[in-house]
Amino acid sequence: MVKAIFYHAGCPVCVDAEQMIFTSLDKSKFDLEVVHLGTAQERIAEAESFGVKSVPALVVGEKAYHINFGASLDDVKAGS
Amino acid sequence: MVKAIFYHAGCPVCVDAEQMIFTSLDKSKFDLEVVHLGTAQERIAEAESFGVKSVPALVVGEKAYHINFGASLDDVKAGS
Repeated sequence: MVKAIFYHAGCPVCVDAEQMIFTSLDKSKFDLEVVHLGTAQERIAEAESFGVKSVPALVVGEKAYHINFGASLDDVKAGS
Repeated sequence: MVKAIFYHAGCPVCVDAEQMIFTSLDKSKFDLEVVHLGTAQERIAEAESFGVKSVPALVVGEKAYHINFGASLDDVKAGS
C-alpha cells in the first residue's frame, strides 16, 4: 500500500476536494490519511517538508499535489 | 462509470500529475480520458466550460480540479 495524505483546513474548497479524492482514489492501492491542519497544527511542518504550500493538497509517495486553492499554509498558521 | 477528463499540455508538471492520476484513480469507477490541449486546441472551449483555467486539471462529474500549476489556458492558446 502506498501512503497518501490529504491535508486540508476545513475550508469549502478543501471539503469539495476531499470528497473527490475520497471517492476517486483507488483504495486497493492507497492507504489514505486525512489531516486537518487547522486542528493538527503540529503537522504543518511535516506538510511543508513534502512541499505543501497551500491546502487542499494531496501527498502521494512524498510528492505534493495542490488541488485548487483553499488557503495558504501561512493563513492556516495564523488561524484564519 | 463516472466520466473523468484529464486536461494537460505536455508540460513537466502535467506529465507528473498525469502519472499520479493514472496510478491513483479507481478505474472501476471512472472512465478516464486524457486530452492534450496543445494538440487538441478545439477542445479548449470545452475545458473552459467546466471551469478549467490552467493545466494540468482533472474534470470529474463536470467539476474542475486544478492540480498544481503547469500553464494557463491562455498560454496553451498562444502555443507557448
